[in-house]
Amino acid sequence: MSMNSFGHLFRVTTWGESHGPALGATLDGCPPNVAVSEEMLQHWLDKRRPGQNKNTTQRNEPDAVKILSGVFEGKSTGTPIQLMIENTDQRSRDYGEIAQTFRPGHADITYFQKYGNRDYRGGGRSSARETAARVAAGGVAREALKSLAPGIEIKGYMTRMGEMEIDRARFDWSAIDQNDFWIPDAAAVQDWEDYLQALRKQHDSVGAVVEVVARGVPAGIGAPIYGKLDTDLAAAMMSINAVKAVEIGEGMNAALLKGSENADEIFMGNDGAPVYSSNHAGGILGGISTGQDVVIRFAVKPTSSILTPRQSIRKDGTAAEVITKGRHDPCVGIRAVPVAEAMMACVILDHILLHRGQIGENQGVIGAPG
Amino acid sequence: MSMNSFGHLFRVTTWGESHGPALGATLDGCPPNVAVSEEMLQHWLDKRRPGQNKNTTQRNEPDAVKILSGVFEGKSTGTPIQLMIENTDQRSRDYGEIAQTFRPGHADITYFQKYGNRDYRGGGRSSARETAARVAAGGVAREALKSLAPGIEIKGYMTRMGEMEIDRARFDWSAIDQNDFWIPDAAAVQDWEDYLQALRKQHDSVGAVVEVVARGVPAGIGAPIYGKLDTDLAAAMMSINAVKAVEIGEGMNAALLKGSENADEIFMGNDGAPVYSSNHAGGILGGISTGQDVVIRFAVKPTSSILTPRQSIRKDGTAAEVITKGRHDPCVGIRAVPVAEAMMACVILDHILLHRGQIGENQGVIGAPG
Amino acid sequence: MSMNSFGHLFRVTTWGESHGPALGATLDGCPPNVAVSEEMLQHWLDKRRPGQNKNTTQRNEPDAVKILSGVFEGKSTGTPIQLMIENTDQRSRDYGEIAQTFRPGHADITYFQKYGNRDYRGGGRSSARETAARVAAGGVAREALKSLAPGIEIKGYMTRMGEMEIDRARFDWSAIDQNDFWIPDAAAVQDWEDYLQALRKQHDSVGAVVEVVARGVPAGIGAPIYGKLDTDLAAAMMSINAVKAVEIGEGMNAALLKGSENADEIFMGNDGAPVYSSNHAGGILGGISTGQDVVIRFAVKPTSSILTPRQSIRKDGTAAEVITKGRHDPCVGIRAVPVAEAMMACVILDHILLHRGQIGENQGVIGAPG
Amino acid sequence: MSMNSFGHLFRVTTWGESHGPALGATLDGCPPNVAVSEEMLQHWLDKRRPGQNKNTTQRNEPDAVKILSGVFEGKSTGTPIQLMIENTDQRSRDYGEIAQTFRPGHADITYFQKYGNRDYRGGGRSSARETAARVAAGGVAREALKSLAPGIEIKGYMTRMGEMEIDRARFDWSAIDQNDFWIPDAAAVQDWEDYLQALRKQHDSVGAVVEVVARGVPAGIGAPIYGKLDTDLAAAMMSINAVKAVEIGEGMNAALLKGSENADEIFMGNDGAPVYSSNHAGGILGGISTGQDVVIRFAVKPTSSILTPRQSIRKDGTAAEVITKGRHDPCVGIRAVPVAEAMMACVILDHILLHRGQIGENQGVIGAPG
Repeated sequence: MSMNSFGHLFRVTTWGESHGPALGATLDGCPPNVAVSEEMLQHWLDKRRPGQNKNTTQRNEPDAVKILSGVFEGKSTGTPIQLMIENTDQRSRDYGEIAQTFRPGHADITYFQKYGNRDYRGGGRSSARETAARVAAGGVAREALKSLAPGIEIKGYMTRMGEMEIDRARFDWSAIDQNDFWIPDAAAVQDWEDYLQALRKQHDSVGAVVEVVARGVPAGIGAPIYGKLDTDLAAAMMSINAVKAVEIGEGMNAALLKGSENADEIFMGNDGAPVYSSNHAGGILGGISTGQDVVIRFAVKPTSSILTPRQSIRKDGTAAEVITKGRHDPCVGIRAVPVAEAMMACVILDHILLHRGQIGENQGVIGAPG
Repeated sequence: MSMNSFGHLFRVTTWGESHGPALGATLDGCPPNVAVSEEMLQHWLDKRRPGQNKNTTQRNEPDAVKILSGVFEGKSTGTPIQLMIENTDQRSRDYGEIAQTFRPGHADITYFQKYGNRDYRGGGRSSARETAARVAAGGVAREALKSLAPGIEIKGYMTRMGEMEIDRARFDWSAIDQNDFWIPDAAAVQDWEDYLQALRKQHDSVGAVVEVVARGVPAGIGAPIYGKLDTDLAAAMMSINAVKAVEIGEGMNAALLKGSENADEIFMGNDGAPVYSSNHAGGILGGISTGQDVVIRFAVKPTSSILTPRQSIRKDGTAAEVITKGRHDPCVGIRAVPVAEAMMACVILDHILLHRGQIGENQGVIGAPG
Repeated sequence: MSMNSFGHLFRVTTWGESHGPALGATLDGCPPNVAVSEEMLQHWLDKRRPGQNKNTTQRNEPDAVKILSGVFEGKSTGTPIQLMIENTDQRSRDYGEIAQTFRPGHADITYFQKYGNRDYRGGGRSSARETAARVAAGGVAREALKSLAPGIEIKGYMTRMGEMEIDRARFDWSAIDQNDFWIPDAAAVQDWEDYLQALRKQHDSVGAVVEVVARGVPAGIGAPIYGKLDTDLAAAMMSINAVKAVEIGEGMNAALLKGSENADEIFMGNDGAPVYSSNHAGGILGGISTGQDVVIRFAVKPTSSILTPRQSIRKDGTAAEVITKGRHDPCVGIRAVPVAEAMMACVILDHILLHRGQIGENQGVIGAPG
Repeated sequence: MSMNSFGHLFRVTTWGESHGPALGATLDGCPPNVAVSEEMLQHWLDKRRPGQNKNTTQRNEPDAVKILSGVFEGKSTGTPIQLMIENTDQRSRDYGEIAQTFRPGHADITYFQKYGNRDYRGGGRSSARETAARVAAGGVAREALKSLAPGIEIKGYMTRMGEMEIDRARFDWSAIDQNDFWIPDAAAVQDWEDYLQALRKQHDSVGAVVEVVARGVPAGIGAPIYGKLDTDLAAAMMSINAVKAVEIGEGMNAALLKGSENADEIFMGNDGAPVYSSNHAGGILGGISTGQDVVIRFAVKPTSSILTPRQSIRKDGTAAEVITKGRHDPCVGIRAVPVAEAMMACVILDHILLHRGQIGENQGVIGAPG
């Protein structure tokens, strides 16, 4: 059914449950001769890894990725790359009540209603742990992009976490990788941390907004009408656990603007490429990249696994009060940042391959003679 | 490349340009024995038709749909259904300047940069006229849903148009079909109309928010992790011209909520099905329907085709000032309503077929013995 | 369900029934800037056209193809190309008995068993008339190949028709297009014609073997393991009506050979490319082209529409004796030749696009330094 | 690029190289609640396992399959099933000459020409070892079929090996599983063995024909026109290493028949289902099953890995004489039998799911009132 796959030419299929023997990603369509190593991928997994700081869950797994196929003598061969992450921290315990009860806001109830069977341990397939496989896949995509479209830089960061919001006037691209929240403002980190710790003590959680930017994407990538670059990016972000909204460029705010305000005017730059007066479009027009920054933004709902009791029902229909104990992030949006970067890398690689396949080198050049 | 197709089992491919001989949709995977006629489809096309009222463009085409295949003696045969709409109102004129110039905010420039060749007449493939084919396809999907999942009702309406916003306290489901704006509040129509006419006189346009609700979708429809119901719906809505953001349920607002606020608590209803205290989730958990209303919302940017002059460039790189004359909607969000309904119908039908294929009748029943 | 489509990047969907208003092909993924005109496509359709000679059916339709989209000012734009052929010769008549009865060897019974509904007029969707759409699609593929991989030549011919078989020692490539049977031996034509006319008088039909050769396909096209060039070609040929077997290179005969006989030995040619001592492989190793001629062969069963009475049943289960009157080819293999050429062109174009997408210019060069 | 996947709803992706850490299959779309265990799958792998008898290669690996995901408490959950087989017998050795030289008849040269990079150890991805993953996948498909379409029996057997050919008059279905050649005639086994051992002593190999029959497939499975049951089966068989031809029912022989000979006449059976006078069609008409036995046949070329020296070239273009030492089957057709059975099981399951999705329970019933 390919419901666990995404991508057209660079096709990623993830597999695995939270508490099964392993999880991973099967990558089909990676170009050959891309330098790929477990170390390269581990770098990105470590960035995402739980247990890294006190703002994410304390599950202390190394998340060590193994490459089982598709790479030979340090380079991709063009055959499927199988990435596996073994689940080493499977604490054995009694799942009696969790096995029977549906947690509000979780996929417990819908998985049961759909399949009549579910691996309830740690959320099974619906666990955010699945996103580790995406991060590993994204590592491969980043390496492939280096040779195919050098100069692309992809970075994600939080712009909002409940009442906390970044100050765009203080935006510092270089600060993003320097703090636990991936926020572009070093001076705000302490406030964000205090806010989150207060929530944790209240046994509560909170939502977030994450923004991902791809710089250096060449113009002409993407395709109308149903395989648009924005369509595929929207689906990619919406596929991340707990995401409830996706915006491109101006996003929901576009509804408030007039045409005269929203138009990105076009000029000819000194290097012979068009430049724009603004980027309301988020770098995409008609589903195709303009050459400006590709800007996507999404909202993550607050985790529903909280210590505050909530009403629910059991599989047998009886009422139950649910308190989710265990290791859970008060803001799952933090962990979503490296995942979203990975998804962005995969989607852009895919569209660069598609463009190369359909168009080759014959795209239109503005200002060309004839 | 299948970039002009969507859907897994109910697969829709649209084709055609704004000013070519015809446009249409090729539908593959429609179940057999569904009653389909040109009249049934025309009903939905008439709802979308331009020239219907003074708030949409004045292009006066009948948009008559013809069924060229796949229907025999009034019923679908299970073979591809070809729907064609001929373009009758192709006013011949001089495209000299438009052929050379890129309109700001339009796909003119990216189509050229991608393909090096574009049908510039009326926006070619990127014209909103393509959405007529979707509406026809949606008509077929609605008929198929009638027999496969009776009781599903799909309705779209505007919730915002620039400064105008609906009052949720006055929400009236029955009013939606009774006014040109598809707003759920008859008393507000005059204000919306005055606002839009003022904008038109200013030679400007404005954005909008559209919400689409599907009532009666059974629980268990959809699929993790990349073919989620919300993923597919997000992609479907993002594929509509000028859409810049998509929300499910609480949407962007989820970022501001605490876990204790956002959880939809679950109870057992009198009819043996679960009921929920609220619907922050928008009827979808983990990519699978809960049985609640499926609620999706999206923002449409203001049309960039306005009479106010904007700076741009020509194909040869020289500067140009662009004024878009001709027939254009001051708010393209209005026309997006029936299109979004059609996309919702297609996506839900597709997922109902997928569910039937993979699961059959064996889904989980809450409260069942054993 | 995409059951009416083939191809990965160059994707062809055919639609239409024998006696409906029209039939055609929706082509998605054709590269832009390919010269395409109705005249170019008509050339290939005329080659296939029924009523051309006394060895094929006497249905006298012009089979005029119309391009409805995707071509602008004589060149493809990269958007979907819609090709339509109207059915002008729909003789009205009483379908009473045919509507109720299943012809032996026809898809009448299986369509009914699958769909519970079928367009019985002229075989409906299962009519060989559907192949006209493939021939038109193949015409587009040929034009795209001209610019993408110049020098590829694709030709099909009959090698067997019942008791008649070509003499390989007299093989004349240039004779193929000069006779009604597409046989590579002008001197044999009269014998073939006499044989077929005798069969016609006996109210019988006969099977055939068709061989298709693509010369000039570059090495490296195709892909393991399930999207092999031979896998896709086999599926393409098997999809043609009445085909019951497909062979690559040595084909079924490979079962009789020893390894020492079957190996195509490799030498270095004067132009720096490998040459082979023989072509048992049919130009494909491991699913990838070697640069030799790609050779595929397939068997077409005798048409089951004959004037000789055969036993069958009706929809209601009662017994019936069937005689198929009307216009039918005594050897449908003849008409399959241009169809098979078209399929070959589509598959090769598709794989050249795929190769360009995944590999770009970086393929391995034998004898290169380093 | 999904070139390593097959299937529509039951989608199988294989991965892995002959001498890498592991190989396996990622299965997406298996229905939930199917009983699956490593033991069940191991049964089929043991049947295929090399080193089982003196007629196949002596590589002595346990080929132990591990289920890494998608099965919980002994039942499929509807999420991806990851099957892994670790490569334990990776004898380290000097690959110096093999790394540089292309074996005639092997994919060595085309992989290099395509990718510019290949894992030359043991054939890498093009090794027949990949088929172990298919056999494991087929094991899952068989279990799913048990509940979805009980009564289907799938069996493969050799009908030809060089000069040896089975005597249809002595066909014994029950003998097939009782001998190393999977031939339906116990009395012939010794002759076949003598023949093969003689070939081995001559340092040669030989081709084979394998036939696979599926009994009990319900009528109505499959779909026109490009996702035909025969199209998908042909592609599935052609994807098996060394296969050069595929036949359905009468196969290549259909070219020699007259229409009056080839027609399978239809009668009404005592149980209300149609019966046929013969099965020239191989159980498929118009791409859809008739309810008769589905019969497919394919030719496997002789293995090109022989001890007889053959001329070839090296990567640098210099000439080389190749003798393939090591463990190689004198007739790879033997090992193809369980692989082909597995492919048949996967394809039939896939089409049963597709049929259920598109058609549901509404298929046509012959002899029904109305």
